[in-house]
Formats: sequence, structure tokens, C-alpha cells
Amino acid sequence: MNNPVFAYANLWQFAHAMFLKIGCPPDQANEATNVLLSADLRGIDSHGLARLSGYVRLWEAKRVNSRPALRIVHESPSTAVVNGDQGLGLVVAPYAMRVAIEKAKTCGTGWVAVKNSNHFGIAGYHAMMALEHDMIGMAMTNASPLVAPTFSVERLLGTNPICVAIPAGQQPPFVADFATTTAANGKLEILQRKNQEAPVGWIQKKNGASSTNPSELKDGGALIPLGSDREHGSHKGFCLGAWVDIFSAVLSGANYGPWVPPFVSFLAPPADPVGEGIGHFFGAMRVDAFRSTEDFKHHMDNWITRFRAAKTIEGQSNLVIPGDPERESEIKRRKNGIPLDAKVVEDLKQLGEKFGIAF
Amino acid sequence: MNNPVFAYANLWQFAHAMFLKIGCPPDQANEATNVLLSADLRGIDSHGLARLSGYVRLWEAKRVNSRPALRIVHESPSTAVVNGDQGLGLVVAPYAMRVAIEKAKTCGTGWVAVKNSNHFGIAGYHAMMALEHDMIGMAMTNASPLVAPTFSVERLLGTNPICVAIPAGQQPPFVADFATTTAANGKLEILQRKNQEAPVGWIQKKNGASSTNPSELKDGGALIPLGSDREHGSHKGFCLGAWVDIFSAVLSGANYGPWVPPFVSFLAPPADPVGEGIGHFFGAMRVDAFRSTEDFKHHMDNWITRFRAAKTIEGQSNLVIPGDPERESEIKRRKNGIPLDAKVVEDLKQLGEKFGIAF
Repeated sequence: MNNPVFAYANLWQFAHAMFLKIGCPPDQANEATNVLLSADLRGIDSHGLARLSGYVRLWEAKRVNSRPALRIVHESPSTAVVNGDQGLGLVVAPYAMRVAIEKAKTCGTGWVAVKNSNHFGIAGYHAMMALEHDMIGMAMTNASPLVAPTFSVERLLGTNPICVAIPAGQQPPFVADFATTTAANGKLEILQRKNQEAPVGWIQKKNGASSTNPSELKDGGALIPLGSDREHGSHKGFCLGAWVDIFSAVLSGANYGPWVPPFVSFLAPPADPVGEGIGHFFGAMRVDAFRSTEDFKHHMDNWITRFRAAKTIEGQSNLVIPGDPERESEIKRRKNGIPLDAKVVEDLKQLGEKFGIAF
Repeated sequence: MNNPVFAYANLWQFAHAMFLKIGCPPDQANEATNVLLSADLRGIDSHGLARLSGYVRLWEAKRVNSRPALRIVHESPSTAVVNGDQGLGLVVAPYAMRVAIEKAKTCGTGWVAVKNSNHFGIAGYHAMMALEHDMIGMAMTNASPLVAPTFSVERLLGTNPICVAIPAGQQPPFVADFATTTAANGKLEILQRKNQEAPVGWIQKKNGASSTNPSELKDGGALIPLGSDREHGSHKGFCLGAWVDIFSAVLSGANYGPWVPPFVSFLAPPADPVGEGIGHFFGAMRVDAFRSTEDFKHHMDNWITRFRAAKTIEGQSNLVIPGDPERESEIKRRKNGIPLDAKVVEDLKQLGEKFGIAF
């Protein structure tokens, strides 16, 4: 836990300079930096600065377009499909979420599927954009195939996260943001660095047998859908991951399942794409399209207060309301700085040297 | 496996007569019977005729209104809230789903939250109503509190199922219909009848300790959210169950969390309700509000075909596409009849005798 700590503002400047360097227009560089750093603030370290060099390598490989012409290619009063023009997902996703919010203003709800995009950072950032409009926000995305569905040995799905963000009144919002696997890939990376074993139920070997080796994916192994095994409901985790894949990519015209391009630039995308880039799906629902905002917030406060006060198992201090840990992390890290893993620091230094930006 | 087998038509006649007997108008009796029997056809035995006497007892306790005045009480172009007037959920849910489908016809999507309803049978029936309109259907409901969130010993949520039904072209539709717990309550009932233990990770004791006793809920124990324990993602299962609860009840004005009235008539509803009855949430999305129906179906066929052909773990015959087992059950049971547990048969006989309907 002796990771070096950096001020938010300094890390923001570095990432912002980097996005400008690869050619992002200033407003898009701002937005990409805000999205990326929100992961570091909220304690989802795997999705923040740790990924910056990966985005840059995708740009070098001409798989990321730093000046995308974002556009709506199909729409109805409450829906749209956005073509991300191979842009950074960090930029495409907020654009699409704004379209969803605008649709909701006139129609009650807005639903936007996105094709031709890239990795969009944390789902939570985008879903939470709805909150200030007194709307419920939803965000999901497909991702590089690392997950074997129940009974299979093939990696056919990504960790395909879902976020649902729901406003409250006096209470902070309810923000559930989770991968549809037993464990997210970032948790394996942490175990790899610490040289520790993974719990049974997170990963399987190439032949489908259970494994506790956090590096198993390098040998053809796979992550497992939420539920861990059939007896404990992994077929339900598969349903969730499949749902995200279909809404994100089959609705939009992006690549789905095993055709989703890998995040890492050293692996080539499949030669026989079934769509364009990766896909996302966003939703915004105006609370007052269902009942008065005041009534809704009153009952959300009551819901949250009641659950937070639940009797706990001996030794557990409290029931965790979705969104609480991330919000607490953000308060702490804005004040005390953001700790970065030594390997991430080294990676960012090298990136800065290559592009002439001081880290 | 020596359960007596009954022809669908005969069981339908019995249930239909029963619904007429308690005062349902003929069209509502038809619909309630179709919904109820769809569970028996699709192999979800816990939600079919096994529940008929439970519905009747709720009617006797004046907690079910057999002649509800169903109405929209709030709406926007793409949303509505329906007051179920304490009707059978078997009748309220299809009404609300039709509202969602009508909204989607003009607006691209339709989203309907329902209050003042009762148990609605299987989520799959309602979500699948969208399919014939080339729409994606969604259905969810809250339910009697039997589930303790991660770290808690209190039963604060129901098994809160979600169904997503997605049309395909040549392939049968994708229909994922699942409780957001590790195991549905119906599975415990099967173990109780067989006098068998439950796997670790399905249930906890009153104090939160792990249990394998399928009758543990009678002693204050609880079901566990999908994921089984914190290390295997039960906090994600809690997020799912909470999401369903909030969409179904906080959006609509129904009871939520521990205030949801119990399904069994011998337990009184909480004395301090926070809303009316139980809540549901439905969605319908027109496929062509996103892309041409032809393109969408072509890619859904490709998705399903690719996943169905996945290499499997040795000893497993194939990857199961969501909806396949239920559809196969329906084909088989329509042809060969529906097996009913001896206890269910006895229960239905008694019910028939009481109301003068031959079983």
C-alpha cells in the first residue's frame, strides 16, 4: 500500500495534454480526461490512467480516430443509433448519453445504441449524467471476449458491465455499476501483481476445469459469468452478459460476441467483422414521466435509509448501498490525492517521454 | 418422476372455471388462465397451477379484487403508470404490457410501471408478448421479501425476476427469464419434497451463517442474491434485485423492500404500507426504432447460431441458449401432457371440491 500519491489536478493535466497530443479537439480532450479520471477518483483503478497508454496504442494502430464525426444514423421519438466514427469511447459515450437525455426531455425516456466505438471507461460516469436532470440513467457496453458462457470453453463475451443510476433526495443517488462476471478483469490484475491466487469460481482453464491462477487467461483460460457455476446460477450471469451484448451491438450494428475487437493493440481485430467497432447502450428515464419527482425522491430516501439501517451479520458493520464506496473514494481522493500503482506510474512516465509531456 | 400427467386442455378448463367462480369477467378469466398455464407448459412448475389455491386464498382474504378497473394514472409519450386496482397480477400484467406495446408503436419504446397489483405468474409470458410485434420485451416484478442483501440478516427483497425477450429470424427468440437470487424459491420446494439438502450458497440461517437446510426460511433464514457470497459477487445480485424493486415499486408507487405484502394469505401485509400492492415494470422496444428489422433478425440468427455451436466442456452436450429449455418443455408438454406433483394434485382436488368444480 505504499503506492505514490498524485494530486487530481496534476494527473488531469497530464491526461489532457496526452489527448490533445494525439489530436483530440479541445472540448473532446476535456471530456475524455474527465471520464478517464473519474475512474481513478471513484477507486476503479483498472479503468482510469492505467488504460491511457492502451488508448494511445490503439490510436497509433489507427484503430482510434481522435477527430470523430459523431452522428445519429437512425432515430425515432424515443430512440437513436449513434455512429461513433471509431472515436474514443470516452467521447462517444457522453455524446450518446446526451442524445438519450434530450429524447427523454420530450418523450419521457430516451434509448441510444452505439456502434463503431471503443472502450468507454467506467459505465457509471455516463449513467450518472442523467442524475442532474432528475432522470434515471443506464449504461452498458460490450467488450473484448474473455468470458466463457456456462458449459463452454470458448471466450464469447466480454465482462459486459451494466450501470443503473437512480436519483434520491436527501440521500446520495443509488449507483449500481458492475461487470456481469463473478470478478472483473481488474481484480485478476491486482492478484497477478501481488502474486496471489484467485478464489475458486472466478476463472476456468482452457479445458473448462476450475483454476485459481490469476494469469490463466494467458493460457487460453476464461473468466466466468456471475454465479460461478451452473449450480449457483452462472447461466443467469450468462443471460446478463448476453443481454448487454445484444442491446449494445445487435441493436446498433456493432461487433458482438467473439467478433468484438480486442482492447489490446497487439492483437488484431477479427478478419471477418459482423459490425463496426464495439457497441454501447444508454438509457435515460425522466422520473416525472412516472410520478412526481418529489414523491419519487421521498421514497428513494426511505428505501436507501431502510436498507442502510438493516441488521447485519455479526462482524459486518453495515449493508453497502450501491454507489457508497465509489462516492466515498471520490471524496477522499479529491482531498488526499490518487494513489497509482508503481507499474502504472512507470507506464505513464514512458508514455510522457515518448510524446514529450512531463509526468 | 411418477407424477400423474394431465392434458393441457383439461387443466385449462379447471383453472378457467376457478377464475370465473371467484368472479373474474370472462375475458380476464381467459387471460389469467393462459398466463398461469404458460408456467406449467414451460416447465416453471412453481409458478403455474401450484399457485392457484394461493391466488384463491388471497381473493378470500379480500386482498385480490377479481373485477379490477385497470387504468393509466400518469403518462408521457413513452411511459405510463398503471393502477392495478388490486387485481390478479395475471390480468394486470398483460394489460400493462399492451400499454407498453402501444406506446412503442408510436414512440419507438414504451415503459410501464405498475402499482397495486399482485403476483403476476412468470415474467416470460409478459415479455414475450412483444415478440409478435417485432419488439424486444422486458418484464420485472418485486415480490415478498425472502432475500437478505449481502452482509445482512434481514429479508428485504424478493426473488425479483427479470425477463428479456428478443426476437430472431429463423432461430427461435432469445428469452432470458431468471430470479435475481442464486436459486429461486421453487427449487427449495423441490428439495423439501425430496428431503434433500441444498447446495452451500443458496440459503443462510437466521444469523447469516451458511445453511444447506431447504426449510431454513421457516426458521427466519433467507435466500441469497445471485453470486452466493461477497467474494463471488453477491453484491451484484443485490444490485440486480434492488434495481428491480426500485423500477417496479418506487417508480410506480407500490410497496418496496420489506413492505411488499407476503404472497401467502395467512401472513398479514405490513401495517405501515409505503405504497399500494406489489409493483411491476414492463418495457417494449420496436426493433426498427434502432435498425431495419431484417438486419436485426439476420444478426440475431447469427448470434444465436454462433453461441449454440460453441465448443463445450467435456461431458456437456451444448451451450444452452436462453429460452431453449422452456420452449422444448412447452412442445413436449403440449403433446404429452403436463405432469403435476402429487401434493399439487391433492391441493387442486380440495380446491375443486370446495368450489364445486370437478378436477
